[in-house]
Amino acid sequence: MSNYDPKPEHKFTFGLWTVGNIGRDPFGEPTRKTLSPVEIVHMLAEVGAWGVNFHDNDLVPTAATASEREQIIKDFKQALDETGIVVPMATTNLFSHPVFKDGAFTSNDPRVRGYALQKTMNAIDLGVELGATTYVFWGGREGTESDSSKNTLDALKWFRESLNFLTEYVKDNGYNLKFALEPKPNEPRSHIFLPTVGDALGFINTLDHPEMVGLNPEVAHETMAGLNFLHGVAMAYDAGKLFHIDLNDQLIGRYDQDFRFASVGIKQAFYLVKFLEDVGYDGSRHFDAHAFRSSNYEDVKHFARGCMRSYLILKEKAEQFNQDEEIQALLAEITSGDNSLNYLSSGYSTETAKQLRETDFDRDALGARNLPYEQLDQLTIELLLGVR
Amino acid sequence: MSNYDPKPEHKFTFGLWTVGNIGRDPFGEPTRKTLSPVEIVHMLAEVGAWGVNFHDNDLVPTAATASEREQIIKDFKQALDETGIVVPMATTNLFSHPVFKDGAFTSNDPRVRGYALQKTMNAIDLGVELGATTYVFWGGREGTESDSSKNTLDALKWFRESLNFLTEYVKDNGYNLKFALEPKPNEPRSHIFLPTVGDALGFINTLDHPEMVGLNPEVAHETMAGLNFLHGVAMAYDAGKLFHIDLNDQLIGRYDQDFRFASVGIKQAFYLVKFLEDVGYDGSRHFDAHAFRSSNYEDVKHFARGCMRSYLILKEKAEQFNQDEEIQALLAEITSGDNSLNYLSSGYSTETAKQLRETDFDRDALGARNLPYEQLDQLTIELLLGVR
Amino acid sequence: MSNYDPKPEHKFTFGLWTVGNIGRDPFGEPTRKTLSPVEIVHMLAEVGAWGVNFHDNDLVPTAATASEREQIIKDFKQALDETGIVVPMATTNLFSHPVFKDGAFTSNDPRVRGYALQKTMNAIDLGVELGATTYVFWGGREGTESDSSKNTLDALKWFRESLNFLTEYVKDNGYNLKFALEPKPNEPRSHIFLPTVGDALGFINTLDHPEMVGLNPEVAHETMAGLNFLHGVAMAYDAGKLFHIDLNDQLIGRYDQDFRFASVGIKQAFYLVKFLEDVGYDGSRHFDAHAFRSSNYEDVKHFARGCMRSYLILKEKAEQFNQDEEIQALLAEITSGDNSLNYLSSGYSTETAKQLRETDFDRDALGARNLPYEQLDQLTIELLLGVR
Amino acid sequence: MSNYDPKPEHKFTFGLWTVGNIGRDPFGEPTRKTLSPVEIVHMLAEVGAWGVNFHDNDLVPTAATASEREQIIKDFKQALDETGIVVPMATTNLFSHPVFKDGAFTSNDPRVRGYALQKTMNAIDLGVELGATTYVFWGGREGTESDSSKNTLDALKWFRESLNFLTEYVKDNGYNLKFALEPKPNEPRSHIFLPTVGDALGFINTLDHPEMVGLNPEVAHETMAGLNFLHGVAMAYDAGKLFHIDLNDQLIGRYDQDFRFASVGIKQAFYLVKFLEDVGYDGSRHFDAHAFRSSNYEDVKHFARGCMRSYLILKEKAEQFNQDEEIQALLAEITSGDNSLNYLSSGYSTETAKQLRETDFDRDALGARNLPYEQLDQLTIELLLGVR
Repeated sequence: MSNYDPKPEHKFTFGLWTVGNIGRDPFGEPTRKTLSPVEIVHMLAEVGAWGVNFHDNDLVPTAATASEREQIIKDFKQALDETGIVVPMATTNLFSHPVFKDGAFTSNDPRVRGYALQKTMNAIDLGVELGATTYVFWGGREGTESDSSKNTLDALKWFRESLNFLTEYVKDNGYNLKFALEPKPNEPRSHIFLPTVGDALGFINTLDHPEMVGLNPEVAHETMAGLNFLHGVAMAYDAGKLFHIDLNDQLIGRYDQDFRFASVGIKQAFYLVKFLEDVGYDGSRHFDAHAFRSSNYEDVKHFARGCMRSYLILKEKAEQFNQDEEIQALLAEITSGDNSLNYLSSGYSTETAKQLRETDFDRDALGARNLPYEQLDQLTIELLLGVR
Repeated sequence: MSNYDPKPEHKFTFGLWTVGNIGRDPFGEPTRKTLSPVEIVHMLAEVGAWGVNFHDNDLVPTAATASEREQIIKDFKQALDETGIVVPMATTNLFSHPVFKDGAFTSNDPRVRGYALQKTMNAIDLGVELGATTYVFWGGREGTESDSSKNTLDALKWFRESLNFLTEYVKDNGYNLKFALEPKPNEPRSHIFLPTVGDALGFINTLDHPEMVGLNPEVAHETMAGLNFLHGVAMAYDAGKLFHIDLNDQLIGRYDQDFRFASVGIKQAFYLVKFLEDVGYDGSRHFDAHAFRSSNYEDVKHFARGCMRSYLILKEKAEQFNQDEEIQALLAEITSGDNSLNYLSSGYSTETAKQLRETDFDRDALGARNLPYEQLDQLTIELLLGVR
Repeated sequence: MSNYDPKPEHKFTFGLWTVGNIGRDPFGEPTRKTLSPVEIVHMLAEVGAWGVNFHDNDLVPTAATASEREQIIKDFKQALDETGIVVPMATTNLFSHPVFKDGAFTSNDPRVRGYALQKTMNAIDLGVELGATTYVFWGGREGTESDSSKNTLDALKWFRESLNFLTEYVKDNGYNLKFALEPKPNEPRSHIFLPTVGDALGFINTLDHPEMVGLNPEVAHETMAGLNFLHGVAMAYDAGKLFHIDLNDQLIGRYDQDFRFASVGIKQAFYLVKFLEDVGYDGSRHFDAHAFRSSNYEDVKHFARGCMRSYLILKEKAEQFNQDEEIQALLAEITSGDNSLNYLSSGYSTETAKQLRETDFDRDALGARNLPYEQLDQLTIELLLGVR
Repeated sequence: MSNYDPKPEHKFTFGLWTVGNIGRDPFGEPTRKTLSPVEIVHMLAEVGAWGVNFHDNDLVPTAATASEREQIIKDFKQALDETGIVVPMATTNLFSHPVFKDGAFTSNDPRVRGYALQKTMNAIDLGVELGATTYVFWGGREGTESDSSKNTLDALKWFRESLNFLTEYVKDNGYNLKFALEPKPNEPRSHIFLPTVGDALGFINTLDHPEMVGLNPEVAHETMAGLNFLHGVAMAYDAGKLFHIDLNDQLIGRYDQDFRFASVGIKQAFYLVKFLEDVGYDGSRHFDAHAFRSSNYEDVKHFARGCMRSYLILKEKAEQFNQDEEIQALLAEITSGDNSLNYLSSGYSTETAKQLRETDFDRDALGARNLPYEQLDQLTIELLLGVR
C-alpha cells in the first residue's frame, strides 16, 4: 500500500454528479450511460472515497412519487451501509428546470422565489435525513445577461430574505446544519450574483444569522476570473468561514471545466493543499470535478483516484517544504527584521503614533534589501518536480 | 450652453495623476512634459471640473524640505482659491519607491510596515489640511508573485492591524475622514490582496471600526477580472459602503488601461450611471483615467471633457429610460406576479413554512412564462444609439 | 417603413440552429420546444431574413431513412419556395455524436477520421443540392484537454489531408463551392486547433488548393480570446480570404455566449459594420447567435429583428462617420505628412536605401506631434450615442 | 556536476534587457542599478549561458556619438571574446522613444515609417557585425487603442512594405540573416497587429520573400490570450517557420509578466520542452524573462540559473515520458486502429471517394471506444511530480 492511497481520515468526497457525469456538453450528446446513485456509491467505495454529496434531484427526481422516493432513499441508505460511505454535504438543484431560467431566489417572479424556498426546505430535510451537516448554496441561475432586466438591489434583497428564511427554518427544526455559499462569476448566466469568495463574505455580514453561513470556495470558479484561489481560501479562513471546499482544476478565462484536481495548475494546487494542511482544516476535501467527455467509466475511476492521489502527493510535498532546511532558512531570512518596532504590536495610542512619527526610516536602505524570492520559488518548483 | 456641460453639482473630480499623466509605460519613455500641481488645477478649472484629488507625492515630493513643502502647499492652496476647485479626497503613494517593492502594510519586513504607517499618517494630515473628507487606500503592492514568499494569513493580519491603527489615528485627531478601500486584482503584483469589491467588503467586517471604512470601486479594476461592475457597485451600496467611485474604462483580461470613461463599455457605463443617479449617490464622480500616450495636452483636455460629457449624456439617457413608456411597460410586466405569496414578506415563522410547503406550484407553467428580455435589451441598445 | 427594415440586398442570414435554439445549456434543460426546419424558415421569412444556413443534421437527422430524408428535403424546399428564403451556406455536424468525442478530422482513430470524411461528402452533396455556394468548417471537437493524448503535428497533418481530400471531392464533382474555416479558441475542447483567424490563414497556405479555402470569422470566437475582431476580419480580407462572416456578440474570457449582434460591444460592432460596408463586402451577413434561454419564440423574433436592426443602425452611423466634417478633418490631419519620402513607395533599391540612410529625421519633433485620438474617439462615441 | 548544468550545446541565450532589467514598472521606480552590456555578458557567462541577444539601443544608445559607438562595440566584443558568449540574434528598439508613440512601420506618419526603416537598417548592420543570424521583429507599438484612428488595411500594407524593403536590404547586402516575427496580442497597445502566431504565419505568406521570414513565438504572449503555446509552436514548426523561440512564463489574461521559465505553467512548459526536443529543434532557447522587481542581482542569477535548470529538468522528464512503458503502451493503444482505411493515405481519387462512401461505419461502437486520457494525464502529472 503506497503512501498515496486514500483513507477515511483524509475526508475525500465526491458528488453523485461528478463521477456520475454522463459527458454531455453544449455541443454534444452524452458519451456515458446514466448510473444509479447506488452504482455511484459502490464506485466511490471501490476507488477509496470517504463520502458522497448530492443535489436533491441527483438522488430523487422531481417527478418521483412518494413511494418511488421512499424506495430510492432506502436503496441509497443500504448502499451507504454496505460501503461505509457517508453523506457530509447536500444541496439543492435550483438550476436545471426551466422554472429557474431567470433565477431561483432572485427570480423577478415571486412565485418562482417561493417555489425555490419550498424546494430547498424539502431538500434540506432530505440532506439532514441522510446525515448532511453542511448545506451548499450555489446560485448558478442567480444573475443576468442584460442588466435592463433585473434590479440588482432587489435581487440582493430577495437573496438575503431567502437565506434568512432558510436559516430560521433550520433553527426551527433544530437541525445541526450550517450553510456554505459557493460563489461563481459566470456560466450559465453571463453575470452571476456573488461572483467571488469576497462577495459571499461581504454578503454574509448582511444576513440575520451570519454565524450559520460560510463559504464553499471552488478552485475552478475563482480561477475562471483569474483570481488567486489560495488568497480566496485564506480570506474565508481568516474570517472563520471556510466551511467546505470544492477541489478541481481550470484554466483562467474559460468555460467551466471542472478538471481533475491538480491536473492544470500544479503549483497553485500545491499552495492550496499546503494551506489546508498547515491550518489543520478538518472539513471534507470535496472533488467537484468530472472526467473528460472522452472517458468511459474505467477511465472515470482513474480520474477519481487521480484526484485523491494528487492531493496526497502534494500533501507529502507540503511536509517536505516545511522540513527543507534551505527553504526554511530562506523563509526565516525573508521574514526577519529588527525588534525596534515591536511596540506597534500593542496597537494604537497617541504615544505610539508620536513615537512612530519620530522614527527615522532609511527608506533607500530598506528598498535595497535582498528578497530572494526567485531563489525560493525555484526551490519550490524543484521540490514539486521531485528533484530535491 | 449644452446640456452636457459640467457643473459643480455633478461633483466631477480628477486626480493630479490623471490629467497630469506623462505618458510613460513599461515599454516607452514619457511623451508629455511634467506639469506642476498648480498647472493641473488650472487645467481642471478650464475644462470644468469641480475637484482635484492627489497622492501625497503628487503634491509634495518625498524628498522635499520643510520649506519646499510649505511653498508647494501655499501655491496649491492659492490655485484652489483662484479656481474654486476643491479637494474631496486624498491618498498615499505606497507603491513607487523601492521600499515598497514587496508591499507596504503587508511587507514581510516590519520596518517597511512601520514606514508605511508613518507615511500614511503624514499624508492623512496633508489631505485633511487641504479639505479631504475621504481617504483612499489602494494597496497596489500588497500581494505576491510567488506564494512561497509570503504567508497570506500574516499579510491579512498585518493589513488589518494597519487599518485599525489608522482609524484610531483619525479618531484621536478628531478628523472628519472616512476610508475607502480600492480593490484591484493584479498589476503591478501578479496577485493583489483584496482583489475585488467583495473581498474588501468581507475584510471591512473584520476591522475594529468597520463604520469608518468603505469602498472606492473602480471600473477598470473589476473589469480586468471580467466582473460586472454594476453588480459590484450595487453590492457596496447595498452594504452602505459606496464611499467613493473611480470612473474609467477597460477591456477584460488586459493590463490596467484607465481609458476615458465610457469609451469602451458603453452599455455597462450606462447601467452604472443609471444606478448612481437612481439611488441618488451624492459623492464625487472621480475620473481615475488618463489620455492615450499619443496625446498632447490639448488632446488631454478633450479626454477630460469627454469623460464628463459622456457621463452627462448617459445621465440623460438614464432619465429617458425611466420615462420610456414601452420600456417601463415591459419592466412592469416582467416584475409582476400574483399576490398569493405576500405572506412571505413578513419573514419566517413555523406557520409560514407550513403554508409554503403546502403550496402547489405549477413549475412547468412558471417555466413557460414569457420573459421578453431580448426585446427589452434591444430597446435599451436603440435608446443608447439615439434612435428612439 | 423605417430605414432599419431588412431587405434582401442586405443578405441577412440565420442558421436553423440559431432561431431554432431550444435553450438548453450545461446546467439546464430546454426552455423552448423544438421547431421543424419548415417552421424556422417561415419564422425567418416573418422577421425579414434573406437566407438560411444549416448543418446536415439540423435538416436531416443522422438516423433518418432514405424516404424520411426525401420527405424532409421536399418539405424544406417547398418552404424555401413559399418564402423566397435562400440557402447560401451549409456545414457538417462533426461534434454532437459521441463518435466525435475526440475530434473528427483529427481523431486519433483512423476510422473516425474516415467517417468524418464520409459524413462531410454527404453533407456537401446536401448543401449543394439546396443551393449552398459556401461550405463552413468549424472544427469544434478538433483539439485536446491534455496534450499527452494527441500529437499536434499528427493532428495538423490529418486535418490538412482531410481538407485536401474534400477540395478534390468538390472539384471532381464540379461543384461551385468554396470552403470557409471557422476558428475558435476553446469550448467544447479546452484547446481547439486553429484557434484564431490568423491560424486558419496560416494553415490554408499549407493546403493543396488554398484558392478554394477561406475564412468564416466569428465575433464571439475571436472575442473569447480577447482579440480585436476588426483586425482579424481585416487580416482575412487583406489576404483575399473573407468568404463568410458570423455576427453575434460576446464578453471576453467567457464561455461561448452567441449573444444578439451588437448587444454587448457596441463600439466594436460599429467598426466591424463600417469595415464591411466600406470595403464593399458582398457576402452573407450571417447571425450565428441565439436568444437568451429565458425567451420564448415571440422574444426570439425580437432577438432576430434586433440583430438586423442594429446592423442597419450601425450602417447608417458608418455613413454618418464618413460624412462628418469634423471627424473627416481630424482624419485628414492625422494621416497627413510631407512628401519627402514618396520615393519609398516604389520599393527597395540600393539607391533608395542609401538615400533613406542619409535622411536626417528629427525624431523629437516627430515624437511631439499632436495625434488627437482622444478627440476623435470621443466624437465617435457621441456619434454612436446619437448626440451629434 | 549535476545533469541540470547548462552547456553550450543547449543553446541557452538571454537578452541584455532580461538579466539587465532594472525593475521599473508602471507604478514604481527602478529597484536595481543599470548594468553595462559588458557586466551583463560576464554575468551570463557566470551563470552558464551560451549566448546574448540585444536591441540596438540595449547596446548603443540612440544619442551615442560615432566614437562612443565604436568604443561600446569594442568593449562588448572583448567581453564576448573573454567569455565565449555568442550573439545569435538581434533586434530593433522601435517602441521606447516618443517618435514611435503611434507605431513604427504602421505609424500614420510617413516620416515615422521612414525613420523606423532607417533605424532598422542600421540595427541590422550592427547585429550582423556582432554575429547575429536571426533578426527579430516585435511590433509592440504597431496597433491601436481606438480603431477610429488608424485604417487596419493601410497598417497591414505599410507593415508589409516595410518587411519587403528590409528583406531586399538583407539580400542586397548579402547578409546571412533570417527574420523572425514575434506576435503579441496587447500591451503596450490595447490591440497589437499580428496578435498571435497564426496571424504572423498568415501575414508572412503575403510578403515578397516569405522564405526569409519566420516566427519567434513567446510563451507569455500566446498565454496572455489564453492560447495553447504548444499548439502555436507546432503550427509554426509545421509550416517550417520556427526560426526562434522566447521562453518565459505568464498567467492568462494579465499584463505582460515575463516570469522565469516554467515557474507558473509547469505542465505546459513540459509539453513545450518535449516538443522542441522530440522534433530536434536546433535554434536558440532564448529566455525573454526577467526577475521579480523585488530581487537584487544575486537573486537575478538564481532567476537565470532557474530558467535553464527547469528546462533541463523537463528535458529529462521528456525522455522519461518517451521511455515509460506504461505511458507508451497507453499511447500505442490510443492511436491504434484497423488498417481498413489505409487506402485513404494515398489521397483523393474518384474511386477512393466511392469506396469511402460505401463503407459502413458503426458510429455508436466507435463512439463507445475507451480513450484513457484521464489515466494518461494522471501518469503525466505523477511523472512531473517525480513520484514515478
